[in-house]
Amino acid sequence: MTTPDFSFTLAGQNGQARAGLLKTAHGEVPTPTFMAVGTAGTVKAMTADAVRATGAKIVLGNTYHLMLRPTAERVARLGGLHKMMDWPGPILTDSGGFQIMSLAKLRKLEEKGVTFRSHIDGTAHELTPERSTEIQHLLDATITMQLDECTKFPATHAEAAASMRLSTRWAQRSRDAFIKRPGYGQFGIMQGNVYEDLRRESAAALVGMDYEGYAIGGLAVGEGQQTMFSVLDYCTDFLPAQKPRYLMGVGTPDDLLGAVARGVDMFDCVMPTRAGRTARAFTSNGIFNMRNARHIDDARTLDENCPCLCCTRHTRAYLHHLFRAEEMLGPMLLTIHNLTYYQSLMHGAREAILNQNYDAYCAQTRETWQRGPDS
Amino acid sequence: MTTPDFSFTLAGQNGQARAGLLKTAHGEVPTPTFMAVGTAGTVKAMTADAVRATGAKIVLGNTYHLMLRPTAERVARLGGLHKMMDWPGPILTDSGGFQIMSLAKLRKLEEKGVTFRSHIDGTAHELTPERSTEIQHLLDATITMQLDECTKFPATHAEAAASMRLSTRWAQRSRDAFIKRPGYGQFGIMQGNVYEDLRRESAAALVGMDYEGYAIGGLAVGEGQQTMFSVLDYCTDFLPAQKPRYLMGVGTPDDLLGAVARGVDMFDCVMPTRAGRTARAFTSNGIFNMRNARHIDDARTLDENCPCLCCTRHTRAYLHHLFRAEEMLGPMLLTIHNLTYYQSLMHGAREAILNQNYDAYCAQTRETWQRGPDS
Repeated sequence: MTTPDFSFTLAGQNGQARAGLLKTAHGEVPTPTFMAVGTAGTVKAMTADAVRATGAKIVLGNTYHLMLRPTAERVARLGGLHKMMDWPGPILTDSGGFQIMSLAKLRKLEEKGVTFRSHIDGTAHELTPERSTEIQHLLDATITMQLDECTKFPATHAEAAASMRLSTRWAQRSRDAFIKRPGYGQFGIMQGNVYEDLRRESAAALVGMDYEGYAIGGLAVGEGQQTMFSVLDYCTDFLPAQKPRYLMGVGTPDDLLGAVARGVDMFDCVMPTRAGRTARAFTSNGIFNMRNARHIDDARTLDENCPCLCCTRHTRAYLHHLFRAEEMLGPMLLTIHNLTYYQSLMHGAREAILNQNYDAYCAQTRETWQRGPDS
Repeated sequence: MTTPDFSFTLAGQNGQARAGLLKTAHGEVPTPTFMAVGTAGTVKAMTADAVRATGAKIVLGNTYHLMLRPTAERVARLGGLHKMMDWPGPILTDSGGFQIMSLAKLRKLEEKGVTFRSHIDGTAHELTPERSTEIQHLLDATITMQLDECTKFPATHAEAAASMRLSTRWAQRSRDAFIKRPGYGQFGIMQGNVYEDLRRESAAALVGMDYEGYAIGGLAVGEGQQTMFSVLDYCTDFLPAQKPRYLMGVGTPDDLLGAVARGVDMFDCVMPTRAGRTARAFTSNGIFNMRNARHIDDARTLDENCPCLCCTRHTRAYLHHLFRAEEMLGPMLLTIHNLTYYQSLMHGAREAILNQNYDAYCAQTRETWQRGPDS
């Protein structure tokens, strides 16, 4: 069998919404797609089999966490991240930059890169565009991300421009460090905050570097959904139609529907997994808090439309009991459900796009979210 | 399909060691067998599918935990414990007495029963032989246990006699309260501490009540393995050969092998599940602490003889990483492994008994335990 080239083809389009197919060395990914976050070499509270059962085709690994523990070199000695975590499918790794800004101590940002101290043991580390790319190679990432600086929000035009231009210079160094291999790809990350001219400038520079895909960074950082959508309204147009578009760190089910409508193909977010561990359920009837006493005697399934283990085998009352008793099975079952819900939402979106009725799909989905737990 | 009567038949015997088959309303259980502990309606860190995959045929539920939360009446409204926890197979429930003594506050022991305050919210509760039996009926326990008092260790002969005789009176009241249903059974619990005459008196009284099975209580409470075995040496003889014998709260793999050699058929213990959550692995090469740095680069499987998900998909280095990173998948995978190891140990014991080479099986198993992680 020959390893396929890394490719992305559009199977259908409905307005700006796209249905695509990403082909990689590790398998195919129908888009739009949601990537479960496997922070430290595991999607939290999930076996790899359980992740597969949700319908997930691609997962995300965090370079920052993995470079500190167990270290990129150790993952490489164990045969790479796919083998280590029992996920032979595609894996996208982030660059490490975002977590350094949110988690690490004593960060120092320079033209060369970032130096920081580990939040685990205080040891000093350096991350440059070259090292971030090398680490992602050691992890055997199917999709490598450029190192970027995620501009803070709010930022003035001057701050956003300076930050975006640093990310652009890092993009070129990341691209130069990337080793092309059949079926593997690298994505550049558009920055520019909420400024259209900066988004345009960023995109143009990245497109000149001919990446295999493009991410939209610097959103979902506090600007609110309306502002995020208004930025997406123009900035997906700056990206080539024939390459995948990845909106980083997004979001709620409603965020996903709106971003797909604006031409986004890929997403990642800790929301469904984190919510699953804290008793928040995403369902076709809206968001429920399973700790709420309203569920204590509720013998109904969590979501009658969901094919997951949690919804086909258990009651809301049992989930409520598990969270009240602080049993690990509560987070386990609700993570299974939430990730399955996100996958079902994206699968439904793809079908609707192919059937040219994406707007109706969104309207119907949003309408049922209003029904609430007593529907 | 007619519900089978509750029955126990011996398929083979090798010395005192027995291979049997327990038939119940909820399925068959080849013995010797180990019952995973599903404290609060869940085997900790395990889906019911994962419990099944370990080879388990019967699980244990804790009356004390379930009566407090979600309450026996609520479990009954949800269709019983089998349905609630997605375990259609046999379930044995304890009587609640043991946990009241170890967990509850302000306990008061009287002839009538025990009054206590919940360790969860301080509410007052009463447990009598009649109520314990009723609760277990509400839970839909396949096997109901009599309410007993687990005599403390050490105890004088007089203390042990008084305690055992209270348990015997409670046994009669539990038996009177038990509603016979096809395929369901109730076990009496032999007490008497380390005193042969008291064990004999207890067993004789219980056998007169014609239970479907007999448990040996009051062991594994600090007396040590040698003393426990010396009590088992005589006390299994006091019980009828054609009924199952259950040694409560035992134990290590070595305890199980020794107790089977002395005629015990059933076991339960939190050891494999609790150990799994604290990084202790039971393997064919002995007990490993997966937090130990010796495993950090070890690309070998945890136990090459084990068919479980953990051992067929992952390395010792990955397990070590998961425990170091405090990821839930560590406890999840190691609980899967430990329970699979216990089931494999009991399965091997049964095969050896049927093949008349149980002593050799024990000797070989104990020899490989000495090999350690570097073998």
